[in-house]
Amino acid sequence: MDSQLFGACPLNKQIDLYFDFSSPYSYLAVARVDKLAAAHEIKVRLIPVVLGAIFNRLGWQSSPFLAQPRKLAYMWQDVKRQAKKYSLEFEQPTQFPIGSILPARIATAFSDAPWLHDFCVQVFKAYFARNKDISNPETIEKILKQMDLDPQEILPRASSQETKDRLKLITEQADDLQIFGAPTFIVHDQLFWGDDRLEDAIEFCLRGEH
Amino acid sequence: MDSQLFGACPLNKQIDLYFDFSSPYSYLAVARVDKLAAAHEIKVRLIPVVLGAIFNRLGWQSSPFLAQPRKLAYMWQDVKRQAKKYSLEFEQPTQFPIGSILPARIATAFSDAPWLHDFCVQVFKAYFARNKDISNPETIEKILKQMDLDPQEILPRASSQETKDRLKLITEQADDLQIFGAPTFIVHDQLFWGDDRLEDAIEFCLRGEH
Repeated sequence: MDSQLFGACPLNKQIDLYFDFSSPYSYLAVARVDKLAAAHEIKVRLIPVVLGAIFNRLGWQSSPFLAQPRKLAYMWQDVKRQAKKYSLEFEQPTQFPIGSILPARIATAFSDAPWLHDFCVQVFKAYFARNKDISNPETIEKILKQMDLDPQEILPRASSQETKDRLKLITEQADDLQIFGAPTFIVHDQLFWGDDRLEDAIEFCLRGEH
Repeated sequence: MDSQLFGACPLNKQIDLYFDFSSPYSYLAVARVDKLAAAHEIKVRLIPVVLGAIFNRLGWQSSPFLAQPRKLAYMWQDVKRQAKKYSLEFEQPTQFPIGSILPARIATAFSDAPWLHDFCVQVFKAYFARNKDISNPETIEKILKQMDLDPQEILPRASSQETKDRLKLITEQADDLQIFGAPTFIVHDQLFWGDDRLEDAIEFCLRGEH
């Protein structure tokens, strides 16, 4: 279990993708990564973090985008254009940011599940394409049911103390890794920030150097 | 003259590249843009602004990178990787940011000169590849001489009141255009921020829509 927590093995073709369900560029990266990585036989670990906790440690109240209306307005315009470029559905949600702890705990508790990537994409799309309130347990339950998963089995494990502690620990480790935003890709000892660095992260993973 | 100041003609294949000589990602964009744009017969206007003045209007003391050491450390790592990817020389300067008003005034006064792009690249390389103090007039004089240009002719026009006023006006217009960082590409009515959006800006310029 611990080997999952501490860095990627430098000999493996593996990318650790740190994300928060409330982060629009994380949506783009998580939705794109599987196809790109699979084409190169790269393993991807999707690692949810509580980005707000990292922001707080850095002395920020919230997302740096929120601190400046002009930058925030541009961000939405940019995400919309990027989503179109990648043929991903997108609609600006009315509430931003949003509480993302419940889906983050599910992704933490079920980090090995074969349905993890699909679940993450479904949650992202609920929020960033269908304006659903992903902080509402009913939204998450509905997603699980639509995926033929059993909320009665999944939700209790997601809200267990073990899962809570684990998500907290992973967030602290992300902070130790000098992460300051999402998505962040960690490949070997290199940190790549932002959806636009996904291709660079893959290239680095393949070559083992940059 | 005024047509140069106010936005791009929507029917032309033209990109307005707003930059500051003190901005590392502006270096990457200005060094890359000519070849990419020429391949598509796109006209590029290099438009220097006083980015610090825009930051101040937004309530920032300086570059947002400087406000957070972790983000600043990543930025240098990222610029180094990107420069290598683009086969551009790069060495982290010891002083950052740096006063960039003198070369900005030259680029303002000689916005139509055939040597403008080359001059801009030389100034960027002096700062971001050879650790030269581009706030020092001697550095700029040396660059001009190496380009077989006459500093005695160029520097007085660069420091004229007309040029000062013009740079101030262009910076105010950039602010009106909602620019918040550099490089920024303006194509028709769309704003693209960051060197990583150069290809998108070109694509948008060619298609006329996004």
